[in-house]
Amino acid sequence: MRTRITEILGIQHPVFQGGMAWIADANLAAAVSEAGGLGLISSINGGVEAVRSEIRKARELTSKPFGVNIMLAAPDAAAIADLVVEEGVGIVTTGAGSPAPYMEKWKAAGIKVIPVVASVAYAIKMQELGATAVIAEGAESGGHIGDTHTMALLPQILDAVDIPVLAAGGIFDGRGAAAAFIMGAAGVQVGTRFLLARECRVHPVYKERLVKASDIGTMVTGKSLGDAVRALKTPFTKKFAAMEADATVSDDAIRAFGTGSLRKAVFDGNLAEGSFLAGEVAGLAKREESAEDIVNDIINGAEALLKAAPEMIYGE
Amino acid sequence: MRTRITEILGIQHPVFQGGMAWIADANLAAAVSEAGGLGLISSINGGVEAVRSEIRKARELTSKPFGVNIMLAAPDAAAIADLVVEEGVGIVTTGAGSPAPYMEKWKAAGIKVIPVVASVAYAIKMQELGATAVIAEGAESGGHIGDTHTMALLPQILDAVDIPVLAAGGIFDGRGAAAAFIMGAAGVQVGTRFLLARECRVHPVYKERLVKASDIGTMVTGKSLGDAVRALKTPFTKKFAAMEADATVSDDAIRAFGTGSLRKAVFDGNLAEGSFLAGEVAGLAKREESAEDIVNDIINGAEALLKAAPEMIYGE
Repeated sequence: MRTRITEILGIQHPVFQGGMAWIADANLAAAVSEAGGLGLISSINGGVEAVRSEIRKARELTSKPFGVNIMLAAPDAAAIADLVVEEGVGIVTTGAGSPAPYMEKWKAAGIKVIPVVASVAYAIKMQELGATAVIAEGAESGGHIGDTHTMALLPQILDAVDIPVLAAGGIFDGRGAAAAFIMGAAGVQVGTRFLLARECRVHPVYKERLVKASDIGTMVTGKSLGDAVRALKTPFTKKFAAMEADATVSDDAIRAFGTGSLRKAVFDGNLAEGSFLAGEVAGLAKREESAEDIVNDIINGAEALLKAAPEMIYGE
Repeated sequence: MRTRITEILGIQHPVFQGGMAWIADANLAAAVSEAGGLGLISSINGGVEAVRSEIRKARELTSKPFGVNIMLAAPDAAAIADLVVEEGVGIVTTGAGSPAPYMEKWKAAGIKVIPVVASVAYAIKMQELGATAVIAEGAESGGHIGDTHTMALLPQILDAVDIPVLAAGGIFDGRGAAAAFIMGAAGVQVGTRFLLARECRVHPVYKERLVKASDIGTMVTGKSLGDAVRALKTPFTKKFAAMEADATVSDDAIRAFGTGSLRKAVFDGNLAEGSFLAGEVAGLAKREESAEDIVNDIINGAEALLKAAPEMIYGE
């Protein structure tokens, strides 16, 4: 399948793998890129030198394009911004803040910059800054989220900007991807499903919980802190929500309870203290698969639906 | 466009108009049915005799099928359940509770029952009860909402039941409708956009506020009461949210503040005390239009996208 984004990036399929903190490493990113999608390494992977080593490892594992997702609110964001230039990374996605301070440097280095955005105003701002494309992320997504959801957000962002728009949030298989494409998206970014990739290093308990999750298996916490996060319903998220509802618990105490919780989920499978970030599509998760099978299932499913779409008009 | 639902109901276009309380009356429902969609009269319209009179009025305005949406949590739900049988209504949609107590009577009267559902478990239960179809309503919708949003909810409900599934929540124009159809929906239900119909009786201030709303123009209140509701951000919703966040304010006081608020929005355009229910698509609202133009724009837009879909594969 060819879209504006496959042409610009020189990739085979318009499927990005979300650059999930502590999860998206060289193994996962390279497997997705090898399958023809766009793999992304997270900048939250144990510090600048660890990210450098993941970038170099990915380059050994694949000769195809991959990118780095930079979490701009992180303390080492400026150092990571330099790192991607030093290492000759060609594609950067950004989240949790504005890439404005780095745009000039990145553009001079020929880096294609694709910010994740959760609102129309932010999408317009990113286009003005010279972004190559934006990823419109609906709040069905796992992890840090905005307020508006994909079916409503995507068309509003498409109406507001001229650069290519990818869709994220609520996309698990060919159905979600076809829906995004028919609305006008140039690509899709998928996070939750890649947690189930064989090449994904999350703890077996994390994968088990995803497979067991239902359609109402996630919840959003952190709104009272101005930092909404979607994760699987677990003892941890329920306790977090109870602390937020309790006026006697300080915001600092809640933040302290959350510190390090993603690592406790990813590496330890710790249900009491771990934050198992996941999107609303977790209920569609059935089994572990290879990254290649995931990319192929999404793209083959979407293509089959798009090909058959005209027949829907005069249906059964 | 023909789908399982147009065949079952004998309607021209698979577009339902949401049966919005205090809003969906004979004028609006008949205009939508005349345009080939399915108009719905709300059971919350001033009591049983008022609903009877709306049903009779709609029958004078159109000879095409229309339905009644029954809010099952309302005190007069049982009387309305009898009324639709007495008045020979052919199609009933239900919300806010289980139609189980009335199913036998309705089925004996030949009524087609289409519950609005917000989860997989509820969709399965409705199929077991003998529902004709279900409307999978994502939490992008205005009014009372569940937890899961359309892009994630619709495929999960489609996987779980065999009866036709319609999509609601996040659908404003042909893009949202085409997305729902390509994912497998047999139809769409649209609420927010019909608030802008010329035949819709909401106060001019309500329509103005919809046209001015942005992509982040709605908010959800009532979660602390177990009754989440999406509405435009106004002085009323902000005060409601502040009361919920204030541990010194009792739930009863919050409920008292909310009582009658929908009528104050619909009839008085009262921004301080009115609840202007609206979905996340409010940001797409541009102008008042006739119900016929709305139905035609949705269906023509969806058909054009479905027809052109195969070309997307080898895109620009």
